[in-house]
Amino acid sequence: MRSPRFHSSLDELAAQLNASIDFDVRLLPFDVQGSKAHAQMLAKQKIISDADAAAIVRGLDEVQAAFESGELKMDPALEDVHMNVEQRLADRVGEPAGRLHTARSRNDQVATDLRLFVRAQGHAILQALTGLRDALITQAKSHIDTICPGYTHLQRAQPVRLAHHLLAYHEMLIRDEGRIIDALKRANQNPLGSGALAATTFPIDRDATSKSLGFDAPTRNSLDAVGDRDFGIELTAACALILVHLSRLSEELVLWSAQEFQFVKLPEGYCSGSSIMPQKVNPDIPEL
Amino acid sequence: MRSPRFHSSLDELAAQLNASIDFDVRLLPFDVQGSKAHAQMLAKQKIISDADAAAIVRGLDEVQAAFESGELKMDPALEDVHMNVEQRLADRVGEPAGRLHTARSRNDQVATDLRLFVRAQGHAILQALTGLRDALITQAKSHIDTICPGYTHLQRAQPVRLAHHLLAYHEMLIRDEGRIIDALKRANQNPLGSGALAATTFPIDRDATSKSLGFDAPTRNSLDAVGDRDFGIELTAACALILVHLSRLSEELVLWSAQEFQFVKLPEGYCSGSSIMPQKVNPDIPEL
Amino acid sequence: MRSPRFHSSLDELAAQLNASIDFDVRLLPFDVQGSKAHAQMLAKQKIISDADAAAIVRGLDEVQAAFESGELKMDPALEDVHMNVEQRLADRVGEPAGRLHTARSRNDQVATDLRLFVRAQGHAILQALTGLRDALITQAKSHIDTICPGYTHLQRAQPVRLAHHLLAYHEMLIRDEGRIIDALKRANQNPLGSGALAATTFPIDRDATSKSLGFDAPTRNSLDAVGDRDFGIELTAACALILVHLSRLSEELVLWSAQEFQFVKLPEGYCSGSSIMPQKVNPDIPEL
Amino acid sequence: MRSPRFHSSLDELAAQLNASIDFDVRLLPFDVQGSKAHAQMLAKQKIISDADAAAIVRGLDEVQAAFESGELKMDPALEDVHMNVEQRLADRVGEPAGRLHTARSRNDQVATDLRLFVRAQGHAILQALTGLRDALITQAKSHIDTICPGYTHLQRAQPVRLAHHLLAYHEMLIRDEGRIIDALKRANQNPLGSGALAATTFPIDRDATSKSLGFDAPTRNSLDAVGDRDFGIELTAACALILVHLSRLSEELVLWSAQEFQFVKLPEGYCSGSSIMPQKVNPDIPEL
Repeated sequence: MRSPRFHSSLDELAAQLNASIDFDVRLLPFDVQGSKAHAQMLAKQKIISDADAAAIVRGLDEVQAAFESGELKMDPALEDVHMNVEQRLADRVGEPAGRLHTARSRNDQVATDLRLFVRAQGHAILQALTGLRDALITQAKSHIDTICPGYTHLQRAQPVRLAHHLLAYHEMLIRDEGRIIDALKRANQNPLGSGALAATTFPIDRDATSKSLGFDAPTRNSLDAVGDRDFGIELTAACALILVHLSRLSEELVLWSAQEFQFVKLPEGYCSGSSIMPQKVNPDIPEL
Repeated sequence: MRSPRFHSSLDELAAQLNASIDFDVRLLPFDVQGSKAHAQMLAKQKIISDADAAAIVRGLDEVQAAFESGELKMDPALEDVHMNVEQRLADRVGEPAGRLHTARSRNDQVATDLRLFVRAQGHAILQALTGLRDALITQAKSHIDTICPGYTHLQRAQPVRLAHHLLAYHEMLIRDEGRIIDALKRANQNPLGSGALAATTFPIDRDATSKSLGFDAPTRNSLDAVGDRDFGIELTAACALILVHLSRLSEELVLWSAQEFQFVKLPEGYCSGSSIMPQKVNPDIPEL
Repeated sequence: MRSPRFHSSLDELAAQLNASIDFDVRLLPFDVQGSKAHAQMLAKQKIISDADAAAIVRGLDEVQAAFESGELKMDPALEDVHMNVEQRLADRVGEPAGRLHTARSRNDQVATDLRLFVRAQGHAILQALTGLRDALITQAKSHIDTICPGYTHLQRAQPVRLAHHLLAYHEMLIRDEGRIIDALKRANQNPLGSGALAATTFPIDRDATSKSLGFDAPTRNSLDAVGDRDFGIELTAACALILVHLSRLSEELVLWSAQEFQFVKLPEGYCSGSSIMPQKVNPDIPEL
Repeated sequence: MRSPRFHSSLDELAAQLNASIDFDVRLLPFDVQGSKAHAQMLAKQKIISDADAAAIVRGLDEVQAAFESGELKMDPALEDVHMNVEQRLADRVGEPAGRLHTARSRNDQVATDLRLFVRAQGHAILQALTGLRDALITQAKSHIDTICPGYTHLQRAQPVRLAHHLLAYHEMLIRDEGRIIDALKRANQNPLGSGALAATTFPIDRDATSKSLGFDAPTRNSLDAVGDRDFGIELTAACALILVHLSRLSEELVLWSAQEFQFVKLPEGYCSGSSIMPQKVNPDIPEL
């Protein structure tokens, strides 16, 4: 990424600080997915040849497979996941690899990778939330006639059905799902084509990459698109509220496990003990 | 709020710590709005008489007007806005005031007030965002052919139109609007009828209060409804992102006002000076 | 504060945003204290006359007394506490009031006020910590032979003396005291004389103002001194840890007050009740 | 760590959540250091034999060397660094390894490891701060007569010497050093002997382990000692202020590198470029 004007390489300590491969390695499948869509669009638009696009796509699939199988290792000297993929691609398919850069900057590439990553994470969270809601409903169904104290200020207030208590969490999770879905709706825009900040003069087809990557539409302003990370913040904020709810549920399990309450007996598989205090069954997992 | 079991009053220092009137005074119009809707529903359901409801509604309007005109002052000894309103209502309409409590707890009352407050704040923010977006569009229209440097890393990168630069902020604000609207959609549920935590045995009509207060529907779980403050957190998180965007715009104005840039000249009405450094025109308002 | 180069006044809305009088009013006694020390030093250095200094000191005392008695009200149009004090001083002593500005900028004045304020707050916190530590020791002394369960993971682990349990908090508070003392040691430097950022050419005596204001020494670098707010952050960080400790103690009182524990019975003066749930004695104050 | 009362092992997913080896591996040298001191004290007190202590010490040294050379790998199934060390020790020295647990719980062991770790980190930070201060002084010395604009509100205010400007950072770093030193002073207490929470009945010598581990004194309250993590928070808070200062310096370097300022020219070894914008020299390292 250094232009010819540079006469020296990056200082060694600076390179260590600069390297992101330790954490951006998780972008690998999204980087490959984005690059394949970009290459195929370039060919469709006659910007590169069909043969080059085919070589790039095949090469990217091989590189991904080689990294995922452990056959290839990420090289820290190559700074980030994008350069690792590029270098390995060049090793395999040669000259056509260089044409993958056409009409694309690192800036719109990274923005695209991050949106694909956030979208995948969001869907995984939605699936986990559904699983937890189902578990709450199952428990609630079997405890419609279990009466327990309802508390305010940790003082017994009015009796409630345990099912009603459990379904309060179900309501919280329904809102959480709504927040994730709304965040993904805003995230699902295609920044490809925004270039470094001022788009590109190549006759690209942004609708084509939007369609092949499953984005709802291209982003509308290139300056905004390369700088925008709202989508990550919004998903993180939604996750923070999920954790507030899970923390409330977990704290309740810890409290209910105390000898003074004994409202619940957690399975041993989710507890720890102590060698010097054999009476102990600690609710470690809810604590964590 | 102390039951007969208490033999002593709240310690004086504890009362000071407990008092919320300094900040919950802003709930006044929403507390009155919620109470009026509740009283009218109680009458419609024959839980209280029409005459009582009419006295309560008239009295609440008078109390609100008296507080808003400054004729009545909030009394810190009455702890919060709810007790202030109740006491003043009782002063004016006597016995019927006590019936306003029927089928309602402080818990669902406060939850209702807060949702009405958050909804009003959200709408005010939406209006302000629209105003700012319009201003950006106006500026953009007159700067379609103004070319300025586009920066990355604060280094000149590629030339862009100033209109394009300004419309990047328009995109950010469009997302901000979407977040506020989504937050309000989730907030706009009616907690009235949830009681302290376990609802009420009175034959209330929650759809009636939902309709008169403009809520989309009653909340579904009473335990969740009295404890839920997600709606406030979600609005606050959306506001935090708005401020990130405004901060970026403001920092740019500060930078562009520097002698080294001189891309912009802020009106004097938004700047401060210095008596000992007469050359200075400081961009105070963007800084703030 | 506007130099002659300005032809218009601050926009009305901007003025509202800019005004800090609502919160900096608490700096009043420190602003007066700093200004008196500055005026007396100016006279001692023959920069202003003894008569002027005497008029300023007397006038400042009167202004402070008038504000504190409520005879004078802060005027929001005067933006902040400093301008309020200055204007009122000028109203009383006339021309000499203007000489108070000699060899001082708003920047070093505000930095001085804030350090005096932080020092006073720190001392108040130290006194409160001592009171709480004494209370813990008193309770510990009377509970040397009270045995209670020691918990880990909220599971009963090993029996401990209640005195030992209480004195754990004493250790935390001792550390808190140390942090406050260390923060005050670093805060107690005199920024007066730093000017706007580049000091002053007047022959001031910074040791004199350090001595009269109780500072250990003058700050050493004027650019640092006017911008430094570390002292406020450090005190706030120490307070955050104090609150972590108080929150742990309070949460324990809430837990111990629960019917399931009943380890403690809080005095009614620190609890609230409920009209519809007469059995309730809520530990409101520890919760807050 | 599971007592005989447990009939099943930890659930597999729970075990993954529970494992801390990924991040507590950095405690390895401190865990070994603490265990060696403990074993030697146990022998000195005749609680274990000299031969056992010698075997343990020798074994621990070998285990550490084997991990550090890469000969041994941490096993995630062994949950954390403590169990990894123990198991490998047992593999090497057999039965005596089990005696290392005498008069020590995991709780006081971990508290000790963390304090040793924090102390080592603090000393490394002090050394780095000294290096940076020296660099500032060197630069300042060669720029006593370099005059540059002093800014407030990013507007040119008064001329200052660049040396004076640079030494403002020196003052900030001096305060940072003071905070680190104060934090280490409070951290440097020995929690060994606190047991799980209620100390131990073995005739241990806490002064001996304090001395051999370089702690100033034993902690005074066992309940506090096993739960206290203030020392980590305090060091982190001090680091946060260091980063505020470094961020201010770095932002200034970014600004001064802009074409509009050109006050500084960063060495290429600390900058990045761009293949499509060959004019660019980006101040990446200050940005990071």
